Order: sequence, then structure tokens, then C-alpha cells
Amino acid sequence: MTKVIITGSKGRMGKALIACAERNPELKVAGQIDAGENLADVIKEADVVIDFSFHAASAGFAEVSAQHKKAIVIGTTGHSEADKAKIVSLASKIPIVLATNFSTGVNTLFWLTRKAAEILGSDFDLEIVEMHHRLKKDAPSGTATTLAEILADVRKLQLKEALRHGREGIVGERTASEIGMHSVRGGDVVGDHTVIFATNGERVELTHKASSRETFANGALRAAEWVVKQKPGLYNMQDVLGLK
Amino acid sequence: MTKVIITGSKGRMGKALIACAERNPELKVAGQIDAGENLADVIKEADVVIDFSFHAASAGFAEVSAQHKKAIVIGTTGHSEADKAKIVSLASKIPIVLATNFSTGVNTLFWLTRKAAEILGSDFDLEIVEMHHRLKKDAPSGTATTLAEILADVRKLQLKEALRHGREGIVGERTASEIGMHSVRGGDVVGDHTVIFATNGERVELTHKASSRETFANGALRAAEWVVKQKPGLYNMQDVLGLK
Amino acid sequence: MTKVIITGSKGRMGKALIACAERNPELKVAGQIDAGENLADVIKEADVVIDFSFHAASAGFAEVSAQHKKAIVIGTTGHSEADKAKIVSLASKIPIVLATNFSTGVNTLFWLTRKAAEILGSDFDLEIVEMHHRLKKDAPSGTATTLAEILADVRKLQLKEALRHGREGIVGERTASEIGMHSVRGGDVVGDHTVIFATNGERVELTHKASSRETFANGALRAAEWVVKQKPGLYNMQDVLGLK
Amino acid sequence: MTKVIITGSKGRMGKALIACAERNPELKVAGQIDAGENLADVIKEADVVIDFSFHAASAGFAEVSAQHKKAIVIGTTGHSEADKAKIVSLASKIPIVLATNFSTGVNTLFWLTRKAAEILGSDFDLEIVEMHHRLKKDAPSGTATTLAEILADVRKLQLKEALRHGREGIVGERTASEIGMHSVRGGDVVGDHTVIFATNGERVELTHKASSRETFANGALRAAEWVVKQKPGLYNMQDVLGLK
Repeated sequence: MTKVIITGSKGRMGKALIACAERNPELKVAGQIDAGENLADVIKEADVVIDFSFHAASAGFAEVSAQHKKAIVIGTTGHSEADKAKIVSLASKIPIVLATNFSTGVNTLFWLTRKAAEILGSDFDLEIVEMHHRLKKDAPSGTATTLAEILADVRKLQLKEALRHGREGIVGERTASEIGMHSVRGGDVVGDHTVIFATNGERVELTHKASSRETFANGALRAAEWVVKQKPGLYNMQDVLGLK
Repeated sequence: MTKVIITGSKGRMGKALIACAERNPELKVAGQIDAGENLADVIKEADVVIDFSFHAASAGFAEVSAQHKKAIVIGTTGHSEADKAKIVSLASKIPIVLATNFSTGVNTLFWLTRKAAEILGSDFDLEIVEMHHRLKKDAPSGTATTLAEILADVRKLQLKEALRHGREGIVGERTASEIGMHSVRGGDVVGDHTVIFATNGERVELTHKASSRETFANGALRAAEWVVKQKPGLYNMQDVLGLK
Repeated sequence: MTKVIITGSKGRMGKALIACAERNPELKVAGQIDAGENLADVIKEADVVIDFSFHAASAGFAEVSAQHKKAIVIGTTGHSEADKAKIVSLASKIPIVLATNFSTGVNTLFWLTRKAAEILGSDFDLEIVEMHHRLKKDAPSGTATTLAEILADVRKLQLKEALRHGREGIVGERTASEIGMHSVRGGDVVGDHTVIFATNGERVELTHKASSRETFANGALRAAEWVVKQKPGLYNMQDVLGLK
Repeated sequence: MTKVIITGSKGRMGKALIACAERNPELKVAGQIDAGENLADVIKEADVVIDFSFHAASAGFAEVSAQHKKAIVIGTTGHSEADKAKIVSLASKIPIVLATNFSTGVNTLFWLTRKAAEILGSDFDLEIVEMHHRLKKDAPSGTATTLAEILADVRKLQLKEALRHGREGIVGERTASEIGMHSVRGGDVVGDHTVIFATNGERVELTHKASSRETFANGALRAAEWVVKQKPGLYNMQDVLGLK
């Protein structure tokens, strides 16, 4: 049983973390901290702090954790250089997980995509199809871009030259050195991503479908259960998932 | 039992027609005609001629059919004006099916797409994803374009303005008046088409997947079984399928 | 602009209705009623009442609506015979929509499935695949069963004999008179349904994916906008969607 | 440039091998052997023999290959004990690939499925959906069974107890120790396989779609290009693909 403290407990991610932790028999929510409350008051009850509160608060939470020799999982992003440096230095005293995407599935998709590209070789044409909600302002998604980067890296392609957005007209036969990218938009889709490897006679498709914020909450909780067993150090989701 | 004669019997479509007809207990191949052979010699044995031979031959086959009061299904395309006029005039004597796409499934997809668009209304975002083999030179496919035309017609949109090929960069929120079009290319995919209707909380997706030339052969055979029961006239696949 | 009153406003569906109505520029939430509050106090401000509160309350709400000549949309289920009779009789005074499933997409899927089955004919093999969350206790889902009923009706099959659950072992070739049914379970999937029509050379697939309760809320709001323009009478979602 | 000899050159696989080899600039078809023709007459022109002829012929072809120090790829199955032993012993003299499934994609799917199961852990529910043509007599497919074996092995489950065919009725909540198996049948589908990993908030899906016999031909040609660079020994497709 891992005892966790959730900071930013009234925020969207905080609520999701608490809800998911309460459904997990291996976890106990030993404390909840929101604006104006003091982590030092409750940290003794816990094994690990999970912080998705606010970027400017994370270095301070890490410091309190280090004083009490507790692990911390940090999911905030956009830290100042000073805060980032502080977090890194505290990792010599306690184990810290710092990551920008805690979804087990997405990190797994990244890893599988690299391996599949290595195995399948250049006979397989590469295409990425992603779908997100109608309000999303940018295309392609960050996750789709990371997938394309992985494919370009394995194939030794320049990403910018390889990417093919929007075939239209007499485009000619597909070349082996392009990566098709298709950003579908509609409704309130949280996020679907498919990487297609297609050759004569067969296709391999790797798909991830996110349906809720729980994805990220469960990844952070998994990181919490993992980090309490580690030596001091700075870790990311690849470490947590054993993907190195 | 419908007795059919297949013209162009050694061509790719001819072979497919014969193979499919032989598997169909309702059909009998009463004759096969290839280059240098004479339709008039065998037509008495048949109820209907199926012609996928060559565009310049079709009007002549139709004339022989009319002389013997037999129906004809014509699947060649690119007829001259004179040949086209002849075929039309012969339709006053015999029932003729003339169509450019004999796939039951694709014609059904067209029909279902129109109805779905009418029912679902403008709250649903419209996106089309099609996948074809790597050798295909044009994008989007003709079938995908027809699907987009149907959607634009129902929504009262100008097709050219509505089509959205290749979202890339900070494109902003999706508008209700766009139709996303995504042409995936790879391997030897015969042809997949999906129309997506997406709104908050739900999606409806209509998909057609072609796997072989048999699709078109079976559609033509269905047309043959149907046309022998019709009065003289000029018909298309929508008539055959009762989709009007 | 249609002015609506939401009953059961603090329940799960009530909250979803209010959230969706507030995002819809054609609608105004003129009143919210929860336990202990009185519909008669606020009904004058509204055009239509939307009731997803509790089955025993619906007949009473319908009566108040009738007294004020306002339309009502009823989404509760399990009414007593007496309550049902009262609702039916009130439909001579006001327009009432009474339905068990308000999803536009699911009702559309039902309609499209019937039409596709009629068009595609008996050469196409019929299979249904549905996926729901791991906590669902029954299989197949009610929606999947309705889909199978529609297919059996069109094909003139006895549903019980036609349904094929779980092929395993040397089952022999598939017959044309079976309907495959596959209930996938896992995670927290709200509800995916696909009807497959497969023949030699091609497949048509009709899919619905629900991602949230909003599906049902938006359907009910659509019913509300529609019902205010109707004559007194008892209607269902098929009427609202013009699917008859 | 690898020079290959194709045995059984007039069989279905032989024809597919020749067609695929002729499209591959790295390969040259140096000889074709069919019934009554003699491998010894042409083997000097080649680097490697590819044998999909007939199980009783393979040991003999391997012997001729060994006499000329040429590599061989064997795709026949059902060898007698004596023939199998002979092939194994010849592997001390030449490099031999012996495999039952040469599809690069299917072998990759096997490998990715094992890795995904290891990474994703027991929070993810496991389901397999496969679709094959209407004439297939057994269910599930051999490939689907292998996928289930891999999942059971990683999860330390007894396969027979874990497999769940055909949920029907009040089956109760899904347990974490079951593997759902769904065999869809229809049309002429060559073979689709999907492994679903589903948990709260997300799904990972790994899919393989075979569209033609070329899949197997291309895998065998890949094995041929690989085996000519190896030391004497007995190899399988996992070795060829570097999947160990």
C-alpha cells in the first residue's frame, strides 16, 4: 500500500487523481493539499507526493519532500530555469519523476512505433492519422508530431521534408521517403492516434485512443507506486514503464 | 436461372465475371466472347449480355442484343458521342444498364451517406478518410470526391470552399462549414473509404472496404439478374439497387 | 430561441442537460427544478419541460405542462401502468416526446442498418461487434440486440436461431442465415457498436461510438426544439429525427 | 543482388514468389523448377533456393543445396520425422530458414503483442478480435490462438481457463484474468487480427491486416536475402526479422 499526497487537489487533474487513487486498492490518499494549505503539515503520513498543481509551486513542494525524505512525482510543465535547476539538484536526495505526458498508453505507443519501424523496414509505407475535437487549434497534435519524429529518426529522414500534409490533385505515386500526416477534427474526441505501416499484401496498425483525463491520472499514480522503490535520482515516464 | 454471355472474356474483368458467375447458383454462363468471336453466334442461348470489353465495341454489342431482344449490361466507359447516342436509342427496344461503378457497396455507401447527412444535421462535423495503394497518382479518389459532393449538397456548401486538405500549423478551431478530406496512401490497398460524422459525445462512421475486382463483377451480375425483368429503358446502378 | 425547464437538475442527466443547453445558442435554460421545488412556479417562463428526473414524477410534470399548454420531453423509464396511461391521455392536449434512447447517432444507426440490410441483400454476411466497459454485467448490449432484431427482421430470420455467440472449434463454414454477435469488454468504454456487411470483394461497416452522456442530453434538447413546433400528440425519437 | 531459384514454380505460392521477386530490384530469379525438372541443373546460377513446393520434396532440395553450398529457405510444412531430421542435419553445412509463417507483419505483431503486454501490465483488459472469410472452418484462427498464447504467457494465465468465447446473458463484470476472443466471419476477408489493451481512460490496439498471398511471398524473399549472409545453421522467421 502506497500512501500518496495530492497537491492541487481541487483542480481538474487533482480531482481525477483522487478519484483514481480511491479506486486502486494498492493506494491510499493520505492527504490533499490545495491553495493556502501546507504540505509540511501532512507529509509525514505519506510515502510520495503527486504534484499537478502549478508550475511555480513544484520546486517548493520538491523541497519539502526532500526535507522529509519522501519521493515526488511532478506533472506540472513550464518551470523557470531556476525552479528546474532546483528540482534537478533535489534529485540527489530523493527519487523524483518529472514528465510531460503520464499516459502509459501513449508512452507505450511511442516505444512500439520505434520498434515496429525498425523491424518492418523500408518496404512499409508510413502514415499517421490522428483525430481530435473540433476546438483544437493546432495540427498535427504534439503526440502525432512525436510519432513522426520517431519514424523519421528510424528511417533516417529529415522530418520537415518527409512530412506530407494534404495530398490533393495529381500528386503522383507515393515515394518511400514520405510520412503521410492526417489531422482529422470533429466533435469532442479526446485523442485518437494511429500509425499505419503498409506494404504489398499487409498492413500493421498501432493505435492509441484516449477517452478521459484518467489516462494521465493513472499514469501518475503508476509513477508514484514505482518511484517509492527507487534510489534518489531524476526519472521520467520511460523509466517508470521500463522502456529503456 | 439467368443465362449470361460475357464479352471480353479473357480480360481482367471478363475473367472475374466468369469466376463469380460460376459460383452463383442463380446464373449460368451461356457463352464467352473474346476478340474475333461473334456475339450473334451465341446470343440465342442467353438472356442477357454483360459487356466489360472495350468502349468502342459496346454500341455494336448493344445493337446485336437489340436485334435478338436480349438485355445488356454495359460496364465500359469513355464511349464516343455517337456510340453513346446509339446505346441510348437502343434502350427504347431493350432494357440496358449503363454504369461506371457496379459495386453494390459503394453505391450503397453513397446512398447511406446522403441519408445520414440529412438526418444528423449541422451539429455533426464531416470528415472523409480514404486509403489507396501507393501507386495511385491522384488524390482524393473519385469515390471520395463523390462522397464529398453528396455531403456538400446536403449541407448546401460550395464543395471547393468546403474541402479542407491537410491541416497544418495553427489552423484555429474547426468550423461547421468545412469537410475534412484525408488521402492515405500505402501498400496495395484496393480502396477503403470512411465518412465520419462527429459531434459532442458521439460519432457515426460509414465505411466501405474493397478487397478485389470481384466487387465490381458481382455488382454487374446483380445488374444482369435485375435487368432481364425490366421493360426496355436505360438504367443505372441506383435503379438496380432500388436506391431512388 | 427555445426556453427550456430542466427537472431533476442536480442529477447526472440534469447537469448534462444544463451544460449542453448553455452551449447551444438556440436554447435558454428558463428554469431548473429539483427535489422539493415546484414546476408550476416557473413553467410560465418556458416553452418546454425536459424531464429526466424520476419515473414516478413524470406523470405529474406532464400534468402541470398540460395545464399551462407547454410541451414536454420525457426521458425517464419504468413508469407504472397508471402513469403511462396518464401521459398518453395528456398527449391529446400537448405535444409529448417519450423515448428510452435520445441519442441521435444510435437512432440514426438503427435506421441506416435497416436500410443497408434491405439494399445489400442476402449475399452479405451480417456480424455485429460491440465494446463496452469492464463493469457491464450483461451481454450483448441492448443497442446491439436492437441492431440484431433489425437485421433478423429484414432477413426474415428467427433472432434466437440466427444469433451466433462465440465461434469456437471446428464450426464449419459460415451459413448465410446467421448473425454473428461479439461482445468485447474492457476499460471504461462508453459504447461502440459496429454492424458489418461482408461479401466477396467488399465490406460495408456502420459504426457508432458514444463518448459521453452528452449524447443523450443533446438528443433530448433536439427533441425539445422540435416538439414545441408540433401539434398535440405522443411522439418518439424516430419522429423527432424524421426517420419514419 | 541475390539470385534465387523458385521450386514449385507453377503452384500458387511459386507464382506469387516469382511475381514479387521480379518487382524487387535486389533480387534476380535465376531459375524456376517445377515437377520433373532438376534442381541440380540450375543451382550453380543461384545464391539461394526458395522451396514452397511440397513437403516430401523439401529434404531432397535441401540435400542438393548442401552439395552446392547454397542456402535454402523452406516454407513447406508437414515433413516426416525422417525428412525433418535430414533438414536439421544439413543445417550444419549450409544456412537454412525453416518457418511456418513468413509474413513479416504477423511475426512483428507477435513480437509487439508480447512487449505491449509486458509494458502495459494487468490494469489493461485483453481482447482479441479476428475476422476471416466465410469459408473458414475453424475458429479462432491459428494466428489468433498464438496471440492469445503470448498474452497468457506474459500474464501467467492458463490459456484454456483464461479464454472467453461468446459472452451472452448476465455474465457479470469482466475479470482481470480473462482474454476475450472474438471470431468474426464473412465475405472473403483474407485475415484481420486486432489485439486490444483497454483500461480506464485509454486503449492500445495492435492490428494486422493481410490482403494477399504476397505477404507470405515477400517474407520468404526477405528470408532469402538474409540467409545468404549467414553461417550454416537452422533459422526461423524470428531470426530473419531480428526479433530475438
